[in-house]
Amino acid sequence: MTPNRLSDSEPDPRPLLAHIRSPQDLKRLSIEQLPDLAAEIREAICRQVSLSGGHLAPNLGVVELTIALHYVFDFATDRLLFDVGHQCYPHKLLTGRQDLLPKLRQAGGMAGFPEPRESPYDLFSVGHAGTAISTAVGMARADQLLGRVDRRVVSLVGDASIVNGVAMEGLNNAGTLKRQFLVVLNDNGMSIAKPQGGMAQFFDRIRVSPTYERFRRHALDILKRLPYGDVMEEAYHRGGEMMKAALLTGHMFEQFGFVCVGPVDGHDLPSLIDLLNEARDYDRPLLLHVKTIKGKGFDFSEGDATKFHSPKPFRVEGCRVEIKGSGRAFTTAFADAMIDIMDRDPKVFAVTAAMPDGTGVSKLLGKFPERSLDTGICESHAMDMCAGMAKSGIKPFFAVYSTFAQRALDQVFQEISLQGLPVRVCMDRAGFVGEDGAVHHGFMDIAMFRVFPNAVLMAAADEPNLKLALEFMRSHDAGPTFLRYPRENVPAKPVQQNPKPYELGKAALVRPAASRSCKLAVLAYGTQVYPAIEAVDRLGDSARDIAVYDARFAKPVDAELIAQLISARTWLLTIEDHLVTGGFGASVLEACNQRGLPTDRIVRLGMPERWFAADTRANQLAQAGLDPKGIERRLRDVIDLIDAESCEPAPVIHVTTST
Amino acid sequence: MTPNRLSDSEPDPRPLLAHIRSPQDLKRLSIEQLPDLAAEIREAICRQVSLSGGHLAPNLGVVELTIALHYVFDFATDRLLFDVGHQCYPHKLLTGRQDLLPKLRQAGGMAGFPEPRESPYDLFSVGHAGTAISTAVGMARADQLLGRVDRRVVSLVGDASIVNGVAMEGLNNAGTLKRQFLVVLNDNGMSIAKPQGGMAQFFDRIRVSPTYERFRRHALDILKRLPYGDVMEEAYHRGGEMMKAALLTGHMFEQFGFVCVGPVDGHDLPSLIDLLNEARDYDRPLLLHVKTIKGKGFDFSEGDATKFHSPKPFRVEGCRVEIKGSGRAFTTAFADAMIDIMDRDPKVFAVTAAMPDGTGVSKLLGKFPERSLDTGICESHAMDMCAGMAKSGIKPFFAVYSTFAQRALDQVFQEISLQGLPVRVCMDRAGFVGEDGAVHHGFMDIAMFRVFPNAVLMAAADEPNLKLALEFMRSHDAGPTFLRYPRENVPAKPVQQNPKPYELGKAALVRPAASRSCKLAVLAYGTQVYPAIEAVDRLGDSARDIAVYDARFAKPVDAELIAQLISARTWLLTIEDHLVTGGFGASVLEACNQRGLPTDRIVRLGMPERWFAADTRANQLAQAGLDPKGIERRLRDVIDLIDAESCEPAPVIHVTTST
Repeated sequence: MTPNRLSDSEPDPRPLLAHIRSPQDLKRLSIEQLPDLAAEIREAICRQVSLSGGHLAPNLGVVELTIALHYVFDFATDRLLFDVGHQCYPHKLLTGRQDLLPKLRQAGGMAGFPEPRESPYDLFSVGHAGTAISTAVGMARADQLLGRVDRRVVSLVGDASIVNGVAMEGLNNAGTLKRQFLVVLNDNGMSIAKPQGGMAQFFDRIRVSPTYERFRRHALDILKRLPYGDVMEEAYHRGGEMMKAALLTGHMFEQFGFVCVGPVDGHDLPSLIDLLNEARDYDRPLLLHVKTIKGKGFDFSEGDATKFHSPKPFRVEGCRVEIKGSGRAFTTAFADAMIDIMDRDPKVFAVTAAMPDGTGVSKLLGKFPERSLDTGICESHAMDMCAGMAKSGIKPFFAVYSTFAQRALDQVFQEISLQGLPVRVCMDRAGFVGEDGAVHHGFMDIAMFRVFPNAVLMAAADEPNLKLALEFMRSHDAGPTFLRYPRENVPAKPVQQNPKPYELGKAALVRPAASRSCKLAVLAYGTQVYPAIEAVDRLGDSARDIAVYDARFAKPVDAELIAQLISARTWLLTIEDHLVTGGFGASVLEACNQRGLPTDRIVRLGMPERWFAADTRANQLAQAGLDPKGIERRLRDVIDLIDAESCEPAPVIHVTTST
Repeated sequence: MTPNRLSDSEPDPRPLLAHIRSPQDLKRLSIEQLPDLAAEIREAICRQVSLSGGHLAPNLGVVELTIALHYVFDFATDRLLFDVGHQCYPHKLLTGRQDLLPKLRQAGGMAGFPEPRESPYDLFSVGHAGTAISTAVGMARADQLLGRVDRRVVSLVGDASIVNGVAMEGLNNAGTLKRQFLVVLNDNGMSIAKPQGGMAQFFDRIRVSPTYERFRRHALDILKRLPYGDVMEEAYHRGGEMMKAALLTGHMFEQFGFVCVGPVDGHDLPSLIDLLNEARDYDRPLLLHVKTIKGKGFDFSEGDATKFHSPKPFRVEGCRVEIKGSGRAFTTAFADAMIDIMDRDPKVFAVTAAMPDGTGVSKLLGKFPERSLDTGICESHAMDMCAGMAKSGIKPFFAVYSTFAQRALDQVFQEISLQGLPVRVCMDRAGFVGEDGAVHHGFMDIAMFRVFPNAVLMAAADEPNLKLALEFMRSHDAGPTFLRYPRENVPAKPVQQNPKPYELGKAALVRPAASRSCKLAVLAYGTQVYPAIEAVDRLGDSARDIAVYDARFAKPVDAELIAQLISARTWLLTIEDHLVTGGFGASVLEACNQRGLPTDRIVRLGMPERWFAADTRANQLAQAGLDPKGIERRLRDVIDLIDAESCEPAPVIHVTTST
């Protein structure tokens, strides 16, 4: 561990890094200069993350590995595929993007994930785990077909991502390739939080076991006796000296058809470079197992790599580090509400898939270790495990980011909805997520889950409603329930201190129209209740004729209320922090059409069909017209329509034709 | 191999099977009687499948294994979880459902997959692979929490399913359980077609390698030198004699934390029973690797297990077997159209995920071995591999059942749509699938894929249109394209022999209104064009005012046409073999609402929100009102509305208020 070199006042000359505008510049440095470059990269990243927040520990861990990869390969031609991409900052700094760093994770700045729109050195924008090996297999096969076998393919995968189902499927298929195909396993033993599962235990074992080291040295003696011995023997005879020395027998990926090398020290630049030089042209699938230290380089980040996985802005003073906090997040409110529920109901069980901090389940893991579980990055498994639990009479609550719930759609279909099982899915980060950008918005959870006959879809507008919604879910046994809430603080002053309990398919009136005739009803889904009220309040006199409802349910929608409003010729504005296509407003439209009700007085507001890049959540909402100002604009449009309409006659019924 | 015992004339006494109404009856038989019971079960299954079609070879392979499991465990209390469930017939015959067999895969008969609605011995209705271990983990954890550790948990998984990502995630998490947890790996080396990937090669190796057998016998000597040696050592000391003899070192699942035993002969009943008796109470995760012969028991089914995986009705005469064929399937038309395209365009590549016969890709694998690929049962990987190929300039066509496309939603999101990559997804079995029932209907492909900004969604009504749609996809580079077609024969007489080429977002008029005024336009999506025309033709005089369009696109819908029709006050009936929620009709509704057009003259027809059990596809369509008769009914309803409307005045515009 090196001492902290970071302080606020010290200048940042970066004499080496400043001259690297592309990997070609890197290749001009001597190997002896590279450790200094690594130190400069670490300081640049840490300084910036301390200002703006971002992924810290994962990036600090791969500085030497990234340098070595770019030193040995030429990724202008060769392919480098990141998995998740929590560890792409050093890569970005080496590929001409230092100027973007000061605006890390901000509009017009450096995206926090690989981003092809930024640079041809980034092949895929990623943020969901486990995909790199599979896309790499595709690129390898395509290059082969196109006669471009000179292009080498490298995927960089973390030890937590590699246990994801897609990664395993990718490994299994990659093992049959008859060409160069390098997978670099970045094993920091950490994942985002602690890694889970049998394979993590296997990695632990081979990382620390001196017995294992001894075994490996003698492994060649027994090579031929192993079922996969011929693969290994071939590797032994074809590999260079470094590879021979580091050849690994008994690694599980060997059984997928990979030659495995390592574990090697991921911070020893000369050795890494030598080894990669040998591995570079090895013409069969090769797994290089690299041990790295997450948060490497600073005491505070090595010491608490989980806290510094993706911290908010923080201050470093000597060795004391303080993360700047602010407000009470929905995530915290969720965790506290769950503690209350789990105290009351011994059958409630909490599950997260590698996001204990992000979902608040970490609190539950601490307080109810027997009734909460982190499955690691495997959303499909987690959803199915919940199905099994529900089948046995336990009440599972799966806390998952909306964007990651997409990874378990088929499980919700077959193992949950088709069986009629009451699994509770609590979707944090629903709607715009801000700085994580397009790979993480929770934009389609309503659209994908509302197809299921017995699904109940809900949103929570604030903390009192979040509690009530969770309580509704606890007692709802007739099928799966889905609750969404955003990456945001709970409103400090809830519009209602004691809202009434959630009742299936019933909206709640939160701001009645002041006048006797309600000309326009706003049906806001979830937290959009708040900007909606603010927007209405800005309208002055016109606000008198407007009521605001907290819709609460997207499935079933409050059809009775909607029918009443439409019969009264009231206009409806639906608002949701979700794609307008297939969302809450669409549910309202379909419900009306199903009942033969006209929809020409329904106006829908939600995310438009386009991708939203990294920015603050507030800016993203504003871009989509979902902030108070945007909603006010839309309200004024509707009021204009109402005014225009009031100058027209209502259709006169039961009179003879006049076509 | 036993000789064929099956013939049409021979009586079927089933002296043992007839008396087994529950597993309790089975337990009363002596071990010596069980081989005769196995023979009876085989004959019962083969006789029935020869009459009605169904899964044959997978079921014949597990007869002894199923008997042994029920003989040793008590699944009235213990849990038996099937993966996919292609192999559940023997289990059903032993658990009180012999009476349902004569109506196998028919309404009111025995479902082709595990079905909790039939029996408490079936825990989950399944049909998608890889899920059993994960749901079993959930049940195991829940039982533990509820203090029901007396309930043993057994999952039965095939060698092809176990490489699916969800299964791997399940194994990885199961490996950490500290309780009884038995996974029986039914390894017939076959999958549905040939298994794929590195792991399949590993299984091959340990199945056939005499070197390996020698190695295993000496394995205990080096146990302690292996990284997972202590797990094995513990198993050795705690296991019984049979387990000790069959203990397996170097199995890849060991590294997930499983003690592995086998491979053992899955047709040797006494040994299986002895081994299961020992394994029954082993209190750690245990994997029992069982070798079986797919199609076991009959020459014809052992000899061609792929053809007899799930055959149509067939005739056995001596050793000659003839599968009864009928008509030209969309699947065949797809394969032939692809051959034409691949002949013309060397960049086109065809992919299937373990369904070469079901999707027609088998023809392409034969003709273009360099440009077609079976990835095995891993739809997520296949989709991502296609993304990688598209990124490199190859044109991948992924032929996949609509229901299995659900398993790759997140990949379509992140690796395809977000990147703007032109991956072509050809969805066979879209809509009702008939005998496979609720686990396999393609009911939600439109709803889940139309959220993506750059997605193009299409359907093919017949063979000429299928060819044109595929050609459109080949040349469309602006993003992903999705084509759907059903499990059905192509119409023998296409409504248009030479339809015009597909043009983005343009519907095609296939039956103009005979009168000058078109009062009602039917917008049929895909094959629904045909029953729609038939229904219109039945209407006599009223048919004169009705036009029928082949909508062709669900995204983008033909907004120009729709706007014209609505402006002309024409009624619209949308028809789709897809869930009405979020489907094609919903797209039309939303497009209208987005443009401020009224929707009160739009009526939608599609699948209602409920599950449809096994039956013929024709019956399922009729139940949903999607057959000519149902459509005719709905047309008459709409005509009534039109007539009622013509008795009302059209609203008079631009006159003073009269509210």
